[in-house]
Amino acid sequence: MKDKAAIKKMVEELKTLKTDDMYLNDFFLTWDQSDDEIAAVFQVAEILRAMRENNISAKVFDSGLGISIFRDNSTRTRFSFASACNMLGLAIQDLDEGKSQIAHGETVRETANMVSFMADVIGIRDDMYIGKGHTYMKTVAEAVQSGYDDGVLEQRPTLVNLQCDIDHPTQSMADMLHVINHFGGVENLKGKKVAMTWAYSPSYGKPLSVPQGIIGLFTRFGMDVVLAHPEGYNVMAEVEEVAKKNAKKGGGSYKRVDSMAEAFKDADIVYPKSWAPFAVMEERTKIVEHGDEAALRALEQTCLANNAKFKEWTCTEELMSLTKDGKALYMHCLPADITGVSCKEGEVEASVFDRYLVPLYKEASYKPYVIAAMIFLAKFKNPAAKLQQLLDTEAERIR
Amino acid sequence: MKDKAAIKKMVEELKTLKTDDMYLNDFFLTWDQSDDEIAAVFQVAEILRAMRENNISAKVFDSGLGISIFRDNSTRTRFSFASACNMLGLAIQDLDEGKSQIAHGETVRETANMVSFMADVIGIRDDMYIGKGHTYMKTVAEAVQSGYDDGVLEQRPTLVNLQCDIDHPTQSMADMLHVINHFGGVENLKGKKVAMTWAYSPSYGKPLSVPQGIIGLFTRFGMDVVLAHPEGYNVMAEVEEVAKKNAKKGGGSYKRVDSMAEAFKDADIVYPKSWAPFAVMEERTKIVEHGDEAALRALEQTCLANNAKFKEWTCTEELMSLTKDGKALYMHCLPADITGVSCKEGEVEASVFDRYLVPLYKEASYKPYVIAAMIFLAKFKNPAAKLQQLLDTEAERIR
Amino acid sequence: MKDKAAIKKMVEELKTLKTDDMYLNDFFLTWDQSDDEIAAVFQVAEILRAMRENNISAKVFDSGLGISIFRDNSTRTRFSFASACNMLGLAIQDLDEGKSQIAHGETVRETANMVSFMADVIGIRDDMYIGKGHTYMKTVAEAVQSGYDDGVLEQRPTLVNLQCDIDHPTQSMADMLHVINHFGGVENLKGKKVAMTWAYSPSYGKPLSVPQGIIGLFTRFGMDVVLAHPEGYNVMAEVEEVAKKNAKKGGGSYKRVDSMAEAFKDADIVYPKSWAPFAVMEERTKIVEHGDEAALRALEQTCLANNAKFKEWTCTEELMSLTKDGKALYMHCLPADITGVSCKEGEVEASVFDRYLVPLYKEASYKPYVIAAMIFLAKFKNPAAKLQQLLDTEAERIR
Repeated sequence: MKDKAAIKKMVEELKTLKTDDMYLNDFFLTWDQSDDEIAAVFQVAEILRAMRENNISAKVFDSGLGISIFRDNSTRTRFSFASACNMLGLAIQDLDEGKSQIAHGETVRETANMVSFMADVIGIRDDMYIGKGHTYMKTVAEAVQSGYDDGVLEQRPTLVNLQCDIDHPTQSMADMLHVINHFGGVENLKGKKVAMTWAYSPSYGKPLSVPQGIIGLFTRFGMDVVLAHPEGYNVMAEVEEVAKKNAKKGGGSYKRVDSMAEAFKDADIVYPKSWAPFAVMEERTKIVEHGDEAALRALEQTCLANNAKFKEWTCTEELMSLTKDGKALYMHCLPADITGVSCKEGEVEASVFDRYLVPLYKEASYKPYVIAAMIFLAKFKNPAAKLQQLLDTEAERIR
Repeated sequence: MKDKAAIKKMVEELKTLKTDDMYLNDFFLTWDQSDDEIAAVFQVAEILRAMRENNISAKVFDSGLGISIFRDNSTRTRFSFASACNMLGLAIQDLDEGKSQIAHGETVRETANMVSFMADVIGIRDDMYIGKGHTYMKTVAEAVQSGYDDGVLEQRPTLVNLQCDIDHPTQSMADMLHVINHFGGVENLKGKKVAMTWAYSPSYGKPLSVPQGIIGLFTRFGMDVVLAHPEGYNVMAEVEEVAKKNAKKGGGSYKRVDSMAEAFKDADIVYPKSWAPFAVMEERTKIVEHGDEAALRALEQTCLANNAKFKEWTCTEELMSLTKDGKALYMHCLPADITGVSCKEGEVEASVFDRYLVPLYKEASYKPYVIAAMIFLAKFKNPAAKLQQLLDTEAERIR
Repeated sequence: MKDKAAIKKMVEELKTLKTDDMYLNDFFLTWDQSDDEIAAVFQVAEILRAMRENNISAKVFDSGLGISIFRDNSTRTRFSFASACNMLGLAIQDLDEGKSQIAHGETVRETANMVSFMADVIGIRDDMYIGKGHTYMKTVAEAVQSGYDDGVLEQRPTLVNLQCDIDHPTQSMADMLHVINHFGGVENLKGKKVAMTWAYSPSYGKPLSVPQGIIGLFTRFGMDVVLAHPEGYNVMAEVEEVAKKNAKKGGGSYKRVDSMAEAFKDADIVYPKSWAPFAVMEERTKIVEHGDEAALRALEQTCLANNAKFKEWTCTEELMSLTKDGKALYMHCLPADITGVSCKEGEVEASVFDRYLVPLYKEASYKPYVIAAMIFLAKFKNPAAKLQQLLDTEAERIR
C-alpha cells in the first residue's frame, strides 16, 4: 500500500503532464487523446486508489448527478460508473430507455437537456449498433454543449464513453493499468508481445469495441500487438489503421495472423475473447432499423452456425503452454464463457480461467478509478492542485 | 448571471413574503396557495438557481430521502425531482408500484408509513385516473401526518404533487417562471394574452392537468387567458371556476373559445397541447376499476377516432402569424408531438417547434428549481434566514 | 423523546458490552451472536434513533456504497436498508439479478467482487429456496473476504442478512426492540408468554424465516415461547433445537402445540402469520433447480388446497379474548393478509388488525435503525467512542 508521501510524489509527477484540453471536455476514444492525457488518466486513477486505501476522501462534489445511460445490459460497467461517481460525490440517476430502440437526433437532443439540469457527468454505453453508438454520444455531447451555451444548463456535463461501437476506453484503460502494474511499470512494456485473439462463444452479437479498444491503445506502448481471428471476423478497418499508426509511432508493431497458436507463440499477454464480425454487425444494424424480426432471427442463426465452425478457437492449457515461459498474463473483460462452467464449449478452459482468477478481478478493479480519473480531469483545470488540496485537507472517507 | 450581491438582494425581498403556512405543509394545488406563497416559490427558485450559477452549495440536508412515486411513466419530471432532491442533499428512492393498479386506502396508508422512516419529502405523480390522483395524495399526506403524530416517523415528510388529475403545479409554476423571465418581470404581464389551446395528437388519454394547471395559475397575474378546444374536450368545470375567480381578483380575464385562430389572435403566449376530454377520462377510470380490458380498448379506439376529426387543430406557421407581431412565445410541457418528426400529424409544425427550441428547454429548466423551492419552503420556518446562512457559509458545490 | 443527556448515558451503557467480534464481520443469524452483541445492536439502534430525533447527524461515511441484492420482491425491507445506509452516509446501488435464477458458486464469487469495489455493506434477501439463501450469503461473504485479502478490494464490505431461508434477523430484532419498548425494558420480559402461530393465507410459499427468527431470538429473553401450527407445517428442526437451547439458558421455555387457542391462552404477545411447510419448500427448491414448470404449478395447487383445510387458523377477536386480559400485543411483519380487506379469508380479522395499526407501524419503524446498528457495529472497533464523537461534533442532519 502506498503511503501519503508516495501519493504526494505521484501528484508531483502529474504536474509534468499537459491536460488542459481535457478540461470541460469528453472522453470518447483513446486515440483522440494525447500520450500525456492517457498518462494523466492512469496517474490520477492510481492516486485516487491510493487515497482510498489511506481513507482520504476524494469527494470533490458536494452535490450533483452522474447520469447513466445504458443502451445494453450491464452489471460491471454500471457498478464501476456508480462507484466512480460516488467516490467523487455525485449521485447516480439512471436513464432507462428501451434497449431495442435506436434513438433519433431530435429526441436525443431534447432528452439530453432534460436529464442534465443538475448533471456533472453523463456515462453512456451504446455498443450494439455499428455506426450508431459513437454518433449517439457525439449528439448528446453537442446537445449539452448547446444547452450550456444557451443558458439552459448551469453546468456542462462531461461525457464518458462507457462502451460504444468503436472503442471501450474505460475497459482498455483499466486493462492497460493492470498490465502496467503487473509488469512493474510502463517502462517495462517495450517489446512485450500481446495476443488479442477471437475465441469461440455460443452467443451472438458480442460487440467489437473490446478488441478494437485493445489494439487501438496497447499499440501505443511499444508492444508487439497481434490480432488473430477466423476469416470473416474482421474488426473495423479504420481502427486497424489507428493500431498501425500507433505502433509505428510508439516503436512497437501491429499485425494480423490467422491462428491462435501463432498469436500465442511467445506472447507475454493473451486476451482471447469472442466478438461478432463487423459485416454481421453492420447487417444487423440495418435489420433492426427496419424492424424486421424474422430477418434478425435468421441472421442470428446464420451467425451462431458460423461461430460453431470455429470451436477450436478456445484458450486451452496447450495453447497457454506456447506463451512466454508458458506464463503469459491471461486477460478478459468478464464475464467469460468458460467451457464446462458457464457453457458447454466456450472461450477458455476452466483450469486456465481459474488459475487467473485473482489477476482477472484485479484487472476489473481498475475500472472505477479510471472512470473517476476521466471525470476528475474533465472537471478541474489544475488536477494536481486539486488533489494536493484533498491531501492537505485530509478529510476521512470513513470518519 | 446574477452575482452574490444580487442574490442577497433577492433574499431581502423574500423576507417581505408571508410563508408561515407552507412550513411542514404540502403542495397540492396552486390555487390553494396565497399570492405570497406563489411569489415565494418563484423567489426561492431563482435564488437557488443563482446560487448554483455561483457554485454555492444549497445542501441543507446532511442525509435524508426523497421518495418518488410515479404511477405514470415519466423521464422529465422524474429527473427534475431527483435534481431538486440532490441539490438539497436528499437521496432518491423510487417506490415502484404497478402502474395499472389503483391503490386502496388501507394499503396506501401502510405503504406511506413503511417508506417514510427516513423520508423528508415524497413526490407523487398520479395523473391517469380522474378523481383518484389528488385523493391518493391526500391519503398519503394524512397517513404520514398520523405516522408522525403517533411516533412512528421521526419526521413528517412533505408531499409535492408532481402531477395529479387536477393540477400539475410544478409544471405550471416552471412555465410561469419562464414567462416572468421572458417578459422581464411579473410587473410586465398585465394585459398579456395567453392562448391555452387543445391540439391534435395521435395518442390517447393525455392528462388534463396541464391545461387546468395553466388556466388555474396564469389567471392570477392580470393576463387575459383564453382556453380553446373542440366540442367535448372540456376540462374540469371546478377548475374553470377557479380561473374565473382568479381572473376577477387579478384584474385579468378568462374565457373559452371554439377555435385556435380566435385564441391565437394577438396572443402574447400560445400553449397548444393535446388532452383527453374530461368525460372520457371519467369513463376510463370506471372501466379500469372494473378491469374490463375489452371496454378499455374500445374506448381507446373511439377516442382516437374522435381526436382524428380535429387534425386541423395544430400549431402552424399560419396560426403563429396571427399572434402579436407574429412572435408569441410558444410553450409546451414536452415532449411534443411534432408533425413529420415524432408523428405523421401532431400538435405542432416542425418549423415552429424548431424556432422555439431554446425557449422550450429554458421553460423546462425551471422545474427542478421550482420543486426544490417547494421543498425548501416546507422545511424551513424562516427560509430567508436559512438562505442567508447558506450565502454566508459559502460552501462550494464543486470544491 | 430522549434528550442529549439521555443519549450520552446510553452511550456509556454501550461501553459495557463486548462487540469486538462484530468488527469487520457479518450478521447472518441471531443465534451466532452473543448476548452482548444482540444487546449492542438494540442499544446502538436506540441511540441512532434518539440522535435523529435530536437532529444530530449519524453520517459516518463521507462516501461509499450500500449494495442491495434482493432475490425476492420487497418494498419494506428495501426501504429499511436504503434508509439505514442513507442515515450513515452510504449511497444505495441495487444489483438486480433475475429472481427465478438460483446462482452458482463461480458466478456468485465473480459478481460479488465486481459490485464491491466501493462497497462498505452488502444487504441480501434470498429467502425463497431452502438450503440456498444462507449458503449464497456465505459464498458472497467468502468471496469479498478473498477479494480484500488478494488486494482486489480496498475495503471488505460487511454482509447483512436481510432474510434468508433460515433466519430473518433484521425482522426479529426489530420485532424484539418493539417488544422491549412496549413492555418498558428487557428486564420486564421474563415469564411473558409469546404465541408464534401459523395462520391461514390464500397465498403459497411464504418463507419460514420469520417464525424461525422469532423462536430463535425471543427464547433468549426468559420468555415462554409457544409455536403452533397445523400438522405438516413444521419449521426447520435445527432452529427448534436452537430455541430449546436458548430457552434453557435464558430461563424461559419453548414448546410446540397444535392449536391457536392453546397458544393464545394467556399470551402476552401473539404473532399469527402464514408460512409454507418446510417439506414443501424443500421439494419446491428441487423442482426449481430442475426447471420443471409443470411440477411447480402442481405443487402450488396441492399446497394451496392443503392450506385451505386450515382456514380456521385465523386471528379472530374471539381468539384475542383468550390472551392475557384480552390485550396481548398483536405482531406481524407486514403486509398481513386481512380478511375482507386484502383477501376474502386471511391471517387476521380486520377489527383486530385495525386496533393494532399504530403498534404495527412502530414495530416496523425499528428495522432501519436495527440495520444501521448492525452496519455501525461492523465498521467501528469502538462504537461507543465513535458515537460519542458524533454527539460531541453535533453536526445537524437538517442544517
